[in-house]
Amino acid sequence: MAEAEEGIEELSITAPLGFRAAVTRSGLKKAGDDLALIYSERPATAAAVFTRNLVQAAPVVLSREHMRRPRHRAILVNSGCANACTGDDGLADAQRSAMLTAALLGCDVREVLVASTGVIGVRLDMEKLSAGIERAAALMSREAGARVAEAIMTTDTRPKRAIARLRVGGRTVTIAGVAKGAGMIHPDMATLLGFITTDAAIGKRALQTALRRAVNTTFNRISVDGDTSTNDTVFALANGAAGNRIILDSSSKDFERFAGGLEDVAKSLAVEVARDGEGAGKLITIRVRRAPSLRDAHKIAATVATSPLVKTAIAGSDANWGRILAAAGRSKAHFDPGMVEIRIGNLVVARRGCGVKFDESEARRILDRSEVDILIDLHQGTAKATEWTCDLTEGYIRINADYRS
Amino acid sequence: MAEAEEGIEELSITAPLGFRAAVTRSGLKKAGDDLALIYSERPATAAAVFTRNLVQAAPVVLSREHMRRPRHRAILVNSGCANACTGDDGLADAQRSAMLTAALLGCDVREVLVASTGVIGVRLDMEKLSAGIERAAALMSREAGARVAEAIMTTDTRPKRAIARLRVGGRTVTIAGVAKGAGMIHPDMATLLGFITTDAAIGKRALQTALRRAVNTTFNRISVDGDTSTNDTVFALANGAAGNRIILDSSSKDFERFAGGLEDVAKSLAVEVARDGEGAGKLITIRVRRAPSLRDAHKIAATVATSPLVKTAIAGSDANWGRILAAAGRSKAHFDPGMVEIRIGNLVVARRGCGVKFDESEARRILDRSEVDILIDLHQGTAKATEWTCDLTEGYIRINADYRS
Repeated sequence: MAEAEEGIEELSITAPLGFRAAVTRSGLKKAGDDLALIYSERPATAAAVFTRNLVQAAPVVLSREHMRRPRHRAILVNSGCANACTGDDGLADAQRSAMLTAALLGCDVREVLVASTGVIGVRLDMEKLSAGIERAAALMSREAGARVAEAIMTTDTRPKRAIARLRVGGRTVTIAGVAKGAGMIHPDMATLLGFITTDAAIGKRALQTALRRAVNTTFNRISVDGDTSTNDTVFALANGAAGNRIILDSSSKDFERFAGGLEDVAKSLAVEVARDGEGAGKLITIRVRRAPSLRDAHKIAATVATSPLVKTAIAGSDANWGRILAAAGRSKAHFDPGMVEIRIGNLVVARRGCGVKFDESEARRILDRSEVDILIDLHQGTAKATEWTCDLTEGYIRINADYRS
Repeated sequence: MAEAEEGIEELSITAPLGFRAAVTRSGLKKAGDDLALIYSERPATAAAVFTRNLVQAAPVVLSREHMRRPRHRAILVNSGCANACTGDDGLADAQRSAMLTAALLGCDVREVLVASTGVIGVRLDMEKLSAGIERAAALMSREAGARVAEAIMTTDTRPKRAIARLRVGGRTVTIAGVAKGAGMIHPDMATLLGFITTDAAIGKRALQTALRRAVNTTFNRISVDGDTSTNDTVFALANGAAGNRIILDSSSKDFERFAGGLEDVAKSLAVEVARDGEGAGKLITIRVRRAPSLRDAHKIAATVATSPLVKTAIAGSDANWGRILAAAGRSKAHFDPGMVEIRIGNLVVARRGCGVKFDESEARRILDRSEVDILIDLHQGTAKATEWTCDLTEGYIRINADYRS
């Protein structure tokens, strides 16, 4: 269970046994810490999910290559510069930063995974970054783990942390995660960076299966603006320090329990990313029920979640359900619009594809809340899907109209 | 050639011979005229293109049915209420309005085409509408044609009109058009209504071919917000009053000339719709060149044109070309990002997928203009595509956050 009510220390990315971290300011971001290092004291199993954008940032290209190694030791991440669309020079920069980190930590360069977020098309300032990496490597501690979530923020207004503790293979296992999001967020990954640490003992293939499954139902189900980033990355590091029976079989009970905990952490982070979308005032949950197929359910949920007209209507607390049905209608899902029921919170606003009389002031009360649930019940099957998004406000425009300067 | 510089009278929808029109206020819209009737004095050939949204408004369902007739006499259009998601009752309302119009004009009900635009999910006020139709039928004149473009506006800030005159089959033929757009605008048609009249003599199949072709390269290549409406409709009425040799063969020179004129009118209207997108300050033209295939070119142009991050950056005159390349990268087109060149106006900002040094103040000067051209030159083929859109501003949010009230 993700326990968001715990204190910051309890939610630290170093809460699992055998992890240390460091954060520092290298000067790549306008203000605040912009460099984080996550380190496993023992060789760890790693899993990764990357952006499906054809344009892949240098750290994505490099980390994908490094993922071929069986074991990893560290994740180096910077905010303020995405190191994307920087060509061979950018790739060399990413490589140099991994090499420096490996040298300082005494491990192989391919045991270092890297991630970047920030402006696209600008080279890393290697002088600042190298000085930052040297400082970070000297500063590593268990305590610093609590500050990693802040150091990876760009336009995020709040750090995102989550943790789960569960009994697996005779031991208590901890799974901790941090994420950043805010803009360029869309299924197929977001400018989303997510880092998950765990002291569970788990094989590399099983960890990858669990991470892929968790991402598909969580990070790949959130949308802020429909734009997919060049840098999206989720890493999981599992170092086995908990001493549980190693999880190798992805059909075992231990695997199911671990995968459930990982999904809880990922879901908690993903929902927080949607809630903290650029300029957002409201978290919107779009639930599609009784759809003819899973594919149709997903298409409808994703299209409604990315509709600017739906998202602006909710920003204005306007129960404009016609826009919801119109978005579903252009989703390319196959369904009969004449059977659709729509609810805003518990309030039925449309039935059999037509509007019903409803209390507008009650609708406004529901829409004025910071969490808005939209239910689209197709009444024509058993498939369902959920997608999280946020309202679209003038704040989004202000943030994005002049991001670089 | 569309001649936007002509006076309003010269651009009237009744400029072609043998057309009359009427506009009136029925009270469906908050203010101003909201009802228009376009009438051909003689039976006309009609062509139509409708929304591909699965949710189709009642007037779309009815007009699709009426299009089976060989000849038509009138187009009835109201703004203020879309008559969409209104079920069987809404369809009956659309039918009653067509029947009343036919009775007043003395034609068959199926010779009347109908279109509506406005709020979704609300029934037409038939008492107001019927009174409006009766007034309109009594008011028909050639002069009123100049005011049709205003009467169909919703959140549009300007009426859209275009005209072309050309020699076809030994006679001068006139093609006139009006359109409305503003929001819910996306390829596959927009909440776009477009009405085109011509005095050309042309067969029904040839007219449909010409209209479909014109829509594909114009109205289907504009985007304001990625939302596709339930009501999108473009009608063309050709009444033969010019007395040209009838155009029947779509491989003839006469057809090519006529189709070119129709495309010019449609393009002029479509570009004006994009320029007048909700809250827009700038018309943005996205040109993709040297793409591996037409399909890839279109995917890239359409994805860049709908990217909120690209559109907000241009609103802020920020030469954030990385967002353009990132949007191309998620378009699902197949291409090598490492060969891409990007220009903003004449300024090269990226080459071989990487940023180049450019004069930021020059970029800002270009982006501050009311028309911004983006060129994405893939350097890997011969296919090309153009898409028109507008910048995304706080004005869009203000307009859409509370549209119904």
